[in-house]
Amino acid sequence: MGSIYGKIFRISTFGESHGAGIGVVIDGCPAGVTFDSDFVQKELSRRKPGQSRITTQRKEGDEFEVLSGVFEGKTTGTPIALFIRNEDQRSKDYAHIADRFRPSHADFTYEEKYGIRDYRGGGRSSARETAARVAAGALAKLMLAELGVSVSAFVSQVGAIKVVKPYQELDWSQIEENPVRCADPEVAQQMFDYIDQVRKNGDSVGGVVFCVAKGVPAGWGEPVFDKLHAELGKAMLSINAVKGFEYGSGFDGVSMLGSAHNDLFYKDESGVIHTRTNRSGGIQGGISNGEDIYFRVAFKPVATIMQDQESLNKAGETVIVSGKGRHDPCVVPRAVPIVEAMAALVLADFYLRNKSSKLSRD
Amino acid sequence: MGSIYGKIFRISTFGESHGAGIGVVIDGCPAGVTFDSDFVQKELSRRKPGQSRITTQRKEGDEFEVLSGVFEGKTTGTPIALFIRNEDQRSKDYAHIADRFRPSHADFTYEEKYGIRDYRGGGRSSARETAARVAAGALAKLMLAELGVSVSAFVSQVGAIKVVKPYQELDWSQIEENPVRCADPEVAQQMFDYIDQVRKNGDSVGGVVFCVAKGVPAGWGEPVFDKLHAELGKAMLSINAVKGFEYGSGFDGVSMLGSAHNDLFYKDESGVIHTRTNRSGGIQGGISNGEDIYFRVAFKPVATIMQDQESLNKAGETVIVSGKGRHDPCVVPRAVPIVEAMAALVLADFYLRNKSSKLSRD
Amino acid sequence: MGSIYGKIFRISTFGESHGAGIGVVIDGCPAGVTFDSDFVQKELSRRKPGQSRITTQRKEGDEFEVLSGVFEGKTTGTPIALFIRNEDQRSKDYAHIADRFRPSHADFTYEEKYGIRDYRGGGRSSARETAARVAAGALAKLMLAELGVSVSAFVSQVGAIKVVKPYQELDWSQIEENPVRCADPEVAQQMFDYIDQVRKNGDSVGGVVFCVAKGVPAGWGEPVFDKLHAELGKAMLSINAVKGFEYGSGFDGVSMLGSAHNDLFYKDESGVIHTRTNRSGGIQGGISNGEDIYFRVAFKPVATIMQDQESLNKAGETVIVSGKGRHDPCVVPRAVPIVEAMAALVLADFYLRNKSSKLSRD
Amino acid sequence: MGSIYGKIFRISTFGESHGAGIGVVIDGCPAGVTFDSDFVQKELSRRKPGQSRITTQRKEGDEFEVLSGVFEGKTTGTPIALFIRNEDQRSKDYAHIADRFRPSHADFTYEEKYGIRDYRGGGRSSARETAARVAAGALAKLMLAELGVSVSAFVSQVGAIKVVKPYQELDWSQIEENPVRCADPEVAQQMFDYIDQVRKNGDSVGGVVFCVAKGVPAGWGEPVFDKLHAELGKAMLSINAVKGFEYGSGFDGVSMLGSAHNDLFYKDESGVIHTRTNRSGGIQGGISNGEDIYFRVAFKPVATIMQDQESLNKAGETVIVSGKGRHDPCVVPRAVPIVEAMAALVLADFYLRNKSSKLSRD
Repeated sequence: MGSIYGKIFRISTFGESHGAGIGVVIDGCPAGVTFDSDFVQKELSRRKPGQSRITTQRKEGDEFEVLSGVFEGKTTGTPIALFIRNEDQRSKDYAHIADRFRPSHADFTYEEKYGIRDYRGGGRSSARETAARVAAGALAKLMLAELGVSVSAFVSQVGAIKVVKPYQELDWSQIEENPVRCADPEVAQQMFDYIDQVRKNGDSVGGVVFCVAKGVPAGWGEPVFDKLHAELGKAMLSINAVKGFEYGSGFDGVSMLGSAHNDLFYKDESGVIHTRTNRSGGIQGGISNGEDIYFRVAFKPVATIMQDQESLNKAGETVIVSGKGRHDPCVVPRAVPIVEAMAALVLADFYLRNKSSKLSRD
Repeated sequence: MGSIYGKIFRISTFGESHGAGIGVVIDGCPAGVTFDSDFVQKELSRRKPGQSRITTQRKEGDEFEVLSGVFEGKTTGTPIALFIRNEDQRSKDYAHIADRFRPSHADFTYEEKYGIRDYRGGGRSSARETAARVAAGALAKLMLAELGVSVSAFVSQVGAIKVVKPYQELDWSQIEENPVRCADPEVAQQMFDYIDQVRKNGDSVGGVVFCVAKGVPAGWGEPVFDKLHAELGKAMLSINAVKGFEYGSGFDGVSMLGSAHNDLFYKDESGVIHTRTNRSGGIQGGISNGEDIYFRVAFKPVATIMQDQESLNKAGETVIVSGKGRHDPCVVPRAVPIVEAMAALVLADFYLRNKSSKLSRD
Repeated sequence: MGSIYGKIFRISTFGESHGAGIGVVIDGCPAGVTFDSDFVQKELSRRKPGQSRITTQRKEGDEFEVLSGVFEGKTTGTPIALFIRNEDQRSKDYAHIADRFRPSHADFTYEEKYGIRDYRGGGRSSARETAARVAAGALAKLMLAELGVSVSAFVSQVGAIKVVKPYQELDWSQIEENPVRCADPEVAQQMFDYIDQVRKNGDSVGGVVFCVAKGVPAGWGEPVFDKLHAELGKAMLSINAVKGFEYGSGFDGVSMLGSAHNDLFYKDESGVIHTRTNRSGGIQGGISNGEDIYFRVAFKPVATIMQDQESLNKAGETVIVSGKGRHDPCVVPRAVPIVEAMAALVLADFYLRNKSSKLSRD
Repeated sequence: MGSIYGKIFRISTFGESHGAGIGVVIDGCPAGVTFDSDFVQKELSRRKPGQSRITTQRKEGDEFEVLSGVFEGKTTGTPIALFIRNEDQRSKDYAHIADRFRPSHADFTYEEKYGIRDYRGGGRSSARETAARVAAGALAKLMLAELGVSVSAFVSQVGAIKVVKPYQELDWSQIEENPVRCADPEVAQQMFDYIDQVRKNGDSVGGVVFCVAKGVPAGWGEPVFDKLHAELGKAMLSINAVKGFEYGSGFDGVSMLGSAHNDLFYKDESGVIHTRTNRSGGIQGGISNGEDIYFRVAFKPVATIMQDQESLNKAGETVIVSGKGRHDPCVVPRAVPIVEAMAALVLADFYLRNKSSKLSRD
């Protein structure tokens, strides 16, 4: 009962790792958005497995089909259904975990909650579910682009290795040039080497994705509960393996004094109001203020490791769980397009919601 | 359009700092919950101003009235409306900011979004709005208590001063014994002194609230979007001044290896399944697993300071904004009951949502 | 869990017949609507008891208070709370039904559903609850008026006495001139005499309210589930005592042939597209087409009668229920403003929803 | 923005008449419902075209595929996606109406609302959309059956030809025995002959579907807005071509006196509370009372007729629209399973919502 998201631009996702496929229905996308199939496919490719030796070696084409809602290349205002049929399923890889609870996975909690569980590849709890988010997010990005809004992310930390430069000084064109999707090429190489080492040890490691939205005008966000950053936080925390979210000054802002933290307003040469600093992360009182919106998302190390771990089976007996199949030693390189997609979905929704803020005669 | 929260246990809040009052309507509370007025009043008192010299000196009785939904001491299943009439309003204190944008406040963004703004005390963006959350949260706590679930929080950081002991080793009975609401009395004193110093400087400082929910059974949370921690994150981020949220291992988990991070299952003497560690924060795959749920919430330094700051007015002219009125130098002591209230509201909602997980004949 | 209505222009109502009062919170009203208190009070007066000898003789001033959301005479985009404190409660009038199930009332079903029941005056199931709808609807009317949309209703049937003239030929200024609120003065007199006779017999009778919305532009309504007439139907059926809803040709359309029923399009002199007939009731495919929207709402005879009736008490014993207190022999005269209010709320919501139909750059 | 329906048992439908297909995602179905594919297919077959010479001659297999949510024959608590791929599309049949507004269709209003329109077969406004409702409704029926609740409907009127017997006296096993789906075989023959005559004249005619739900326990329905009959009304009115809804005594109840209309309570031999009559239609105060729930749904004559009609094209020029393609002269025989499906969906949702009415320790 939690697979529908958004208030106006609403997505309803479905699908399991080893079922027929993964899909999404988007209800509430305005009519007239140019549906660029190539772009949607490209976004899916950024998320798909098998991109380099530090990502899982599963081969999934992740080709999508439009089932409804697009006519002569445009959205029609009716629901848009996108579907990605599953391929290369090796369900038998999972027979050994059918009655076992893998540590720090969702096996135990799904069993407790539903009393039944599609154990193949994690079923619905598999990160494969995020393909639907990326497809829907690609459409949201297309709509936002027509409004001059863009969303971009990169890997800013892997294990203890961090990008230290401010995001404004990075060369964003570098992100897709390295398999880690880090905007700083030197740090990217260190991250790659570290992940590769972790992989060889049959282990996994976490990371941080940094995301920036540019071009968002002042006014998006709906206090007091649906503040823009609150909804961004929920969207990010809903992604598999995410453990934390912070925007603007974030947790570091805690130890600052107000006199140093406040963002002072000024007017630039062209008469536009800006803030001299942006510790607010582009959001004040839950509403965008026209500055860059930026935030960080923390991902834990992937729970599946190629090492033996003690656990329990459904009968409550102690068993050994051994990692099999093909898994990512570090999830963040493939998480970059997912973070962007969820951010785009949140922004698309708030763009539409904001249309009702003031009385207008149209 | 964002003042309604929750799916089944739904709250609808209203009110401004200097209007008639602050209130909340709760639709979806089950019938039969004993409504303990004294408890609700006590919770409101924990949030109200004027508790010590490190909180604002405004005097607000914050006495509430039940407008509906309670009959002979029990909830009836119909909407429960609670109202707190405003007192001690000094609206004229705010005349000087009627046309000015206070730095890092919501003045500018409300003006941009709505084209009109109740500037008195921040209007709807005032932290006074949280009184309604605390009142509704008190009712949620009462319901949860009947289910054996409790929610408690304390201040774990102010500026750079942190509680370092694990939460399990703290004496929680100490929390209400000091004005900072820190569970470690020694650290509490350091925090108090620091906040007092900051106050004398006319400045402000941030902090962290640490929250634990005990007794939540396995099964609460609704993947894939309404994961328990995602909704907790949204609820916390919707509180004024919050900049970040993390649960379980949080941002620190990023730099751990999977082999060290995974929580191993075991069965205790009474046959109950537990995990040996709890880096999952009591939530796996977005669903509670029966362990303690714990998380941290980062609050920025309060934007209102008793120092002159440069800013703009509505006409776009440079002006000086001077802090007046009565304000908190550090928001976290009074934020403790707010964090608890929002957590209780989220849990109450998921308790009810979880009733639909499995087919049952009742 | 059903006291919140609307998607964008959302109302959350609360209150019981003999509690503190009746109220409503409106979340999602745009900023900038002029709040005309006199108009809201006038609408409440049209609904209030004691208007003539054919309505209940209860005296209720039904004066409302604005608790939030209005500043300097305008809505601010934040929640608007309106509250009507109860007066003239004679709760002891109801002691005799505390443990009895009145025939065709909600006593039995509330008891079954909630296990507890505020029996005083019907509690939440009292028609007094509709005061909140009228208050919120008045605000919706004010907003719609600024868009050139009006909603008006009249009593078109009482018992078997019907208005036979087409609504276009009636003098709508007559509606408020007679206590029945019938647009045809002659029929109004017959209705009045009949209701008065029914009243003297201690009985009750049903009726039909006919409602027309003018000025609604083409485009309002959200297929496939939230069709404009589907939502109007739900809104009307949610009013106490309503048993049926039909729009346009309604049930009579069933026996027509398609060739006679279809509304042919044409262009008028000013180039505007119209239909020559309007059996569609201004709605095609669930979306307004620019013609008048009209519909009929059937009300059953009021369940409370001044006659003895056999029933059961909570213990399952046969008892006699005798009507006491002050009740309406026919509900439709006072239902006119309620029907209008609910229609206005539905239209206000669809106006806002329609803003997201097409991509626009604003 | 209106293709998602339900609060807990939520369906999200998609698809157009001549796109890839028609589908539905069900989010909120409890885990553990036995998914009987044959039953779902059988329900779809009751709705599909080509059943007799009085229904459209289009040939559609309407075979469905399960895309997600079912594992080893049971629902898993995760979203269930069902898809029916379109076949036998003759899109070129529709080229002639690409720029024309067919009278009493949704062509004009979709064009006005969205600015773009998939004209092939009516696109999203085609009755083909209801296949998704029937598929989802079949699942709801399966769940309800496990709770002892059934939903059945039949055609009670075609043009002016009506079934006059009370529904309790009809032989329901006759319904599927005749192509009209009328429970009275003699009336069924008259209806068939009449529809056939209308068909030969290239015309169409309306009808009424009568529906009964049995076995619904007391307690389902959520006042004050989401009353059981209000939601049933909305669900029915959302079906293509529906013009009216009434339950229990309906519009006829208007002219009754309260003393004759009230349903008196009594206790049967086994101690169960019943009402002697059932003018309430099984619903009091918006909540089921344990009696049969019954209602009537009015369908207008189908707008597509095989006769020339004057209309306008997008350029505003007068044109002649001629019916082509394959259409139903009377929609009600195929509407029977759609009415049942929507009723089942409403009941399934209220069953789940009612779980939160009272505090319980489970």
